[in-house]
Amino acid sequence: MEAQSQVQQSKSIESQLVITSPLDLLFNPRSVAIIGATPRENSVGGVITKNLLTKFKGKVYLVNPKYDEVNGVKYYKSILDVQDEVDSAVIVVPAPTVPKVVDECIRKGVKVAIIISGGLSEVGEEGAKLENELRRIVQNRIRVLGPNCIGVYNAFNGLDTFFLPEDRMGRPKPGPVALISNSGAVAGAILDWAARRNIGVGLAVNYGNKLDINEAELLEYFARDSRVRVIVMYMEGLKYPGEGRKLLDVMREVVSIKPIVVYKAGRTKAASGAVRSHTAALAGNYEIYKPMLRQAGVIEADNLTDAFDMAKALATQPLPRGNRVLIITDSGGMGIQSVDALDMRGLQVPELSESLQEILRKQLPPLAVTRNPIDLTGSATDAMYKFVLDTVLPTSYVDMALIIALMQIPGLTINLSNYIVEARRFNKPIVVVSFGGNEYVAKFENHLEENGIPVYHAPHRAAKALWALYEYAKIKGVVRGW
Amino acid sequence: MEAQSQVQQSKSIESQLVITSPLDLLFNPRSVAIIGATPRENSVGGVITKNLLTKFKGKVYLVNPKYDEVNGVKYYKSILDVQDEVDSAVIVVPAPTVPKVVDECIRKGVKVAIIISGGLSEVGEEGAKLENELRRIVQNRIRVLGPNCIGVYNAFNGLDTFFLPEDRMGRPKPGPVALISNSGAVAGAILDWAARRNIGVGLAVNYGNKLDINEAELLEYFARDSRVRVIVMYMEGLKYPGEGRKLLDVMREVVSIKPIVVYKAGRTKAASGAVRSHTAALAGNYEIYKPMLRQAGVIEADNLTDAFDMAKALATQPLPRGNRVLIITDSGGMGIQSVDALDMRGLQVPELSESLQEILRKQLPPLAVTRNPIDLTGSATDAMYKFVLDTVLPTSYVDMALIIALMQIPGLTINLSNYIVEARRFNKPIVVVSFGGNEYVAKFENHLEENGIPVYHAPHRAAKALWALYEYAKIKGVVRGW
Repeated sequence: MEAQSQVQQSKSIESQLVITSPLDLLFNPRSVAIIGATPRENSVGGVITKNLLTKFKGKVYLVNPKYDEVNGVKYYKSILDVQDEVDSAVIVVPAPTVPKVVDECIRKGVKVAIIISGGLSEVGEEGAKLENELRRIVQNRIRVLGPNCIGVYNAFNGLDTFFLPEDRMGRPKPGPVALISNSGAVAGAILDWAARRNIGVGLAVNYGNKLDINEAELLEYFARDSRVRVIVMYMEGLKYPGEGRKLLDVMREVVSIKPIVVYKAGRTKAASGAVRSHTAALAGNYEIYKPMLRQAGVIEADNLTDAFDMAKALATQPLPRGNRVLIITDSGGMGIQSVDALDMRGLQVPELSESLQEILRKQLPPLAVTRNPIDLTGSATDAMYKFVLDTVLPTSYVDMALIIALMQIPGLTINLSNYIVEARRFNKPIVVVSFGGNEYVAKFENHLEENGIPVYHAPHRAAKALWALYEYAKIKGVVRGW
Repeated sequence: MEAQSQVQQSKSIESQLVITSPLDLLFNPRSVAIIGATPRENSVGGVITKNLLTKFKGKVYLVNPKYDEVNGVKYYKSILDVQDEVDSAVIVVPAPTVPKVVDECIRKGVKVAIIISGGLSEVGEEGAKLENELRRIVQNRIRVLGPNCIGVYNAFNGLDTFFLPEDRMGRPKPGPVALISNSGAVAGAILDWAARRNIGVGLAVNYGNKLDINEAELLEYFARDSRVRVIVMYMEGLKYPGEGRKLLDVMREVVSIKPIVVYKAGRTKAASGAVRSHTAALAGNYEIYKPMLRQAGVIEADNLTDAFDMAKALATQPLPRGNRVLIITDSGGMGIQSVDALDMRGLQVPELSESLQEILRKQLPPLAVTRNPIDLTGSATDAMYKFVLDTVLPTSYVDMALIIALMQIPGLTINLSNYIVEARRFNKPIVVVSFGGNEYVAKFENHLEENGIPVYHAPHRAAKALWALYEYAKIKGVVRGW
């Protein structure tokens, strides 16, 4: 009992959020019961039990008739035995028991159930029957995420039902990206990847068989959560008739508030069978989807990394007022690659006025190229970058900056990242291309990203990120002439 | 003198290679003189001096009239003072002195000069005059790489004129990839990147102003060097009339021996100005280039990482006899993404025969999908992968394998990499998709790559690599029906 109260004490706070909808309670419950909690470390229930006991900033109640107390933490026989109010229940019991425990949750007045348990409609007829029984019980009396899902990850309050142990799946730091994933395994791999790359994914959710809560509602919730600055969606297909229309309507609304980046897998006819066997969803005809997504103002990604490349920029950069890009580089070759990549995306690399070039030429070494790309060559120094940034970025000739810094060049130091971060004051988007593997490179990149400047390991990726900013700027109507 | 002989002793061997052309001496000289050698650590000459003294497995002579002896290593006033035969000279003197020292090299009987020095035709009229003077002196009496280049990196014998210090540019391990780069800075960044990613780039070269040795000759040399299994070219443009035709002819010949992967930057009209200011080359009309490269049998990359993604597979995998891909996955979502990516590249994911699926179903858990993609789901174990690989890969239904292993799933261990490596015995190409950031992921990936199985962090990158193998298989005529 002592350990229990300690646990509860150490995480009570947080509940400053005003609770306005059941989905608020999905992500920000004040109290959570784990039904199927267990001390067995590497089981699904065990990982969730450990996650919530050690990290969740709210009250946790463990429910499992097999235990009375483990390591001083009390176990309840049933959720009905808990005296206090319980906002949310995480359900990790065998499929046949799910209807019964959900019924108990309803009787207890629990508002949201996250049903992790699999073995329902996804396994065939027997499971489908169980899921139908569950549906009959639920009927608007409780909100349900899942079943057959990996649930919710909230880096802000430690609510984490992702049942992969920490040594297998890193947890990303709190940050402005929210993820809605059609696939639990893909969501887990993304979080692990984001954690290592220091990308702040504050909220993530997978909805499994989608008995109740769906993509549209999750989008609506994230649109209202001010901690979220960009929403990434991984989609394979839709399940129910009419869902697509509703989803597109919601997307259109949400996009007026914050950007949505969608990666739709299952684009090809060849993949439609695989989509069906994966989540019983219909991949749909991508040729029809594509223009509709575009019309809804969604930014489409071509793969998972592409989605996060764009999300990083959308989450951190101001929107450009036009499509003209200033390129500063210490490598002519990387400058050329960047012009190609920007041009292919419809962005411009305008030549600078003669008078502006004259100002640059006076300060830069004779070999430097001042047209744009501004090539500082292998003789580049931090100070040259600073001079060019401060001289050109605030002018009306350019709307955003793509800065290439090959840190192999000995004239550059980590201090360059400070100059780049300082250039945020011009309120124009800035992205950086860095390429290499030495420790200067890593330090440089980390410092930039920690200070709101996204870094890319290839010019085409940086160009795509600037394109996304420009696309969203057009949608929001901030571009001159749009 | 003692330190000098010690240095020489520690690196004499290597010269087992039969010297058949001056370009052999460019990459495999028995002895090298550094003209402009210096003990000043971070200068261009200093880095090269240190590189060669500490790593080169051959004789090194230091030439600089300013010094007699530093740390027990003798300096010569002029190369003419060296008594022994000198195969190659690395020249790092101010531009105006270059013609004179090259003349001395010729008189000394040196076969190849790597002229690192810049300040020649690339800086304007004055420099162009110097370069013309140099051209008159050279006239077939000595072979010249450069001027204005970063020179040669040979991981096999330690010949390394890349003048970026080790803490700024990692050096890749010896390996089957050779790099020909139009840009010195890009070459340096690639090596640094490859070193960190453990990609074996055994040989790399940048030819700078291309006074003499050009791409075509370097290709011919790499075609003959049996340590090279794939050649990566980074190109921006060509300089001299008629060069393109010659280069394409050589490419066609080389491709019959080993694959060439080309990334051509400066594709867009927008970039042509930047190409001109970078290396005084003409970007050329890419719309004309593209089909010609294709006709020559070259495999085209869309960016630098793409080039190395494909090179990794071409350097390690056997060629497929058809375009049918077996997909094994522990994530339905990743399977779907892979089908999309393969289908977009014209590769097939054939459904397996009912009898083969029956065999699989008997051994795999009921939730596994056996059609192809074979989805082992989150319950996957190493043994299931091994069973599917051993059962399906040797059959005549498939020509290659794309294996997806999300190592977030606790049922998988590092041992899975052993099973995958063992499947090389079926003599069909295998590539692996891994996604995430935890240490299991890193160990798994390293073990695979060290044992000749290329790993990719996204399905579309793995699909592109398989496509490259299939393309090259068609060129080599090993595909059934081609």
